[in-house]
Order: sequence, then C-alpha cells, then structure tokens
Amino acid sequence: MENPGLMTIELKAGERLDDLERNGYKIIQNPDVFCFGMDAVLLSGFVKTGEGTRVMDLGCGNGIIPILLAAKTGAAHITGLEFQEYSADMAERSVQLNKLEERVSIVRGDIKEVVGRFEAASFDTVTSNPPYIKGGNGLTNPDEPRAIARHELKCSLEDVVLAAKYLLKPGGAFFLVHRPQRLAEIFICLSRNGLEPKRMKLVHPFLDHEPNMVLLEARRSGRPQLNIEKPLIVYKSEGVYTDEIYDIYGY
Amino acid sequence: MENPGLMTIELKAGERLDDLERNGYKIIQNPDVFCFGMDAVLLSGFVKTGEGTRVMDLGCGNGIIPILLAAKTGAAHITGLEFQEYSADMAERSVQLNKLEERVSIVRGDIKEVVGRFEAASFDTVTSNPPYIKGGNGLTNPDEPRAIARHELKCSLEDVVLAAKYLLKPGGAFFLVHRPQRLAEIFICLSRNGLEPKRMKLVHPFLDHEPNMVLLEARRSGRPQLNIEKPLIVYKSEGVYTDEIYDIYGY
Repeated sequence: MENPGLMTIELKAGERLDDLERNGYKIIQNPDVFCFGMDAVLLSGFVKTGEGTRVMDLGCGNGIIPILLAAKTGAAHITGLEFQEYSADMAERSVQLNKLEERVSIVRGDIKEVVGRFEAASFDTVTSNPPYIKGGNGLTNPDEPRAIARHELKCSLEDVVLAAKYLLKPGGAFFLVHRPQRLAEIFICLSRNGLEPKRMKLVHPFLDHEPNMVLLEARRSGRPQLNIEKPLIVYKSEGVYTDEIYDIYGY
Repeated sequence: MENPGLMTIELKAGERLDDLERNGYKIIQNPDVFCFGMDAVLLSGFVKTGEGTRVMDLGCGNGIIPILLAAKTGAAHITGLEFQEYSADMAERSVQLNKLEERVSIVRGDIKEVVGRFEAASFDTVTSNPPYIKGGNGLTNPDEPRAIARHELKCSLEDVVLAAKYLLKPGGAFFLVHRPQRLAEIFICLSRNGLEPKRMKLVHPFLDHEPNMVLLEARRSGRPQLNIEKPLIVYKSEGVYTDEIYDIYGY
C-alpha cells in the first residue's frame, strides 16, 4: 500500500528506504550505522496505549518504535529521545517522509538528562529497546554507533528505568524489550524504582529453543501480580515465520 | 516394577498407597489431608544434585520430594523438614516402607527455626514446594492441613528463602516451584538474600496457555545470569500428556 502523501526526501550515502508494511510508512536505515531489529518490531506489537495518550520512546534510534506506534496505536503524541546525532537525523527525516510531524517529535538528548528537559509525570506510556549488553569489554571501537546501541556504554538499565519512573504518570506503563539472561536484575531494578512488573512475554526463536528476548510491561505504583503470557515463537520451521510474527509485522 | 524389599506398613483410616513408578517406591497419601501434586513431581525432575550430596527439602509434606530424589539422584542423604505432625508421620512411614531410612530422614520442625536445629552451610542442595498463596483471607478453616500447605499462614516465601540461605554452602543450589504471578517478588527475595536466580523453566498446561507454574534454581553467591529453558508443556491434547511429562513421571 502506498501512502499518497509521501514526501520526497533525499537519502544520504549508505542509506536505504525500507517499507514498514503499515499505513504505507517507510523508514530510512543505514546498514553501516543503525538498522532496527526484530526486537523493536515485537516491542511495538506488545505495547498497549490508549487513544489520546502521550508516549515517550527512550533511545529511539532511527525512529522505528515511534513510527510503528503512530501506525498501530491511537496515541495522540509520541516523542522519540535519541542521543546519537546521526540516528536522530535519520529519525527526523523518516518522520517528515511519512508526514508524521504533528504526532511524532524526535528530540536530541540524553536519557540521563530527562529531568528539566521534560515535565515529571507527563507521559502515559514509556517504551524502550535499550542496549542489552553490560560493559564494553573487548570492543575495538566503543564510540561506534552500533556499539553504543548494543552495549551499556552511554546508558545503563538503571538510567533507562530512572528516566521512565520520572516521566510516567502514576499508573502509567513502561514497556521494555531485553535479554532473558538479565530478567532477575531487570525485575529488581524496576521494583526498586516503583515500577511493578505486570505482564511478560518470552520470545523463542523456535518452539524447542530457549528464549532470546523478553517483552515486559511494568506499571508505576502497580500492585505486585505478574501475568506471564503464552510464549511468542518466531519460526515454525527454518526460515518460515509463525502466523503471530506475520501478524505483528503486518504482512 | 515391584520392590522385593518392600515392608508391610499398616495404613490408617482414609489413607491409600500410591505407586511412584520409580524403583518400585510407594507413597502413603490421604486425600482428606495431603496428596502431592504435579508441582512436586516436576520439581523433582528439575533438581540437579550430584553424587554424594546432602539435600534438604523444606516443608516436605508426605515426603514426596525426598523419596523421588532418593530414586532419581545420587544424593548421599536427604532430609525432609515438616511442621505438620500427621504429614511428617505419613512421610516417615513411607520412608520405612521403601527401606530408605539410611538415605532419607524426616525431621519434625518449623522452617523458621532451622538455626540451631541444623548446622549453617551444611547442605549442597535445598528444595521446596512451599505454600503459593499470600495470606489466608476468606479461608473458612485456616488450621486445616491443606490450607497450611497452600496458603502462607505459617510460613512465608521470605521464611523459606532465609532458611535456604542459612542451610546452603556457598555455591550450593536452591530449587523452588512456585506461581508465575509471584516471579518478580521471588527474584527480589532471592537476590536480597544472596541467592542468585540461575535457571528457570515455565510450565504451561497447553502450548497456547499461560504458564501456571515456574521452576527455579538459584545459587548461593552466584554470578547474575539467568538461563531460561524451553517451556515445559503438560498436555499435547485434552487428557494426553506430552512425552516430557511421561518421562518425568517415569512411565
């Protein structure tokens, strides 16, 4: 489906334009710098946010989550906060390309500096697909954008959770995708900051494999009671996605 | 398979003798007071304990976990601690019936009073299938043995974890079965007490159902890194167990 209102935007060297299969939306990617992964798409399918809500995506990269949430939800406004200049630039151009300027804002800034930049308790929903890997040992180039997106070099789990806690209204929801190996630490960090884990879904590459992602919803000032959903299985056989994955991707 | 050395033990009113399908072992149950559930059997299949280890089962009921571990593992000695007199009596008679007196001891006592009764850091492995339900609101008879086994009336999650922490050697493992709804609280309680969640398995009644049990292994002074295993599915169709369940049950 083509979006008749799509603007023409010039691509920079190394960039490509990908179709998001939702509302005709497209996204600028650069394989040398930042491309979104399945984790961002699965998080966008896991998020529940009502009509008219205000959403913040912490560390939005090239804007994949804000743009998918604009397509999939009735959120009134979505802010994407991004610290890396070139990723924020790609995100901003994708927002213009899809004529989403009135619903999606890309803000350049550090997750650790949300206080002062944004009003406390001013968002209904916060989302994040943060760096998964502790530390940066062994990295040949820790300043490389992909290293910063994957490793906790500039921003730790605690930084993301502290920002979510500050930004969320009481009763507001925080949606996170992360690695199952860090689940215990994630629960402890959330609870310590008054965000109660309420809903969880494990993502398994195959039915008989260990999970490699976890999707979580926590609520500010929620009552302790975790609902673990049936697992999400990615492939039904080598290279063939399950119906649930096709459904989330929107094919 | 019959155990040729089985003793004759007189059953009391209301009791029955069930075959455990392991080494010819049998167990005394009383449907009016205490019968083991699938959770105890699945926990016994989840426990890993090496040759010659010393094991403690906290709140052993009619002795189901100590007797199954005697059948399934090379543990040198297994202690079952039970607070309710009649359950401990059933457990003791089942130990005699199976001629397991040299490997299994049933001790009458309170999980909250392990200090002094047992030496600190004297067990390699601690197991527990504790009460799952918080509080006892709405119970018509909170002194009823089944209420005590299911509700945290005499013993809380924290009591069980504190006992495990006291009893385990550094590096020793704690195996627990519990409700998924309480997973966040369980992780927080374990970590607070120096028991690091290391391995987890969710149990789903059917493939497309939410899980109703969680099996956990935590290690005293372990490094944070959780391995979530592929899920355990109980039924492949209505009333038909999966192969994995048949395997754990030993049929």
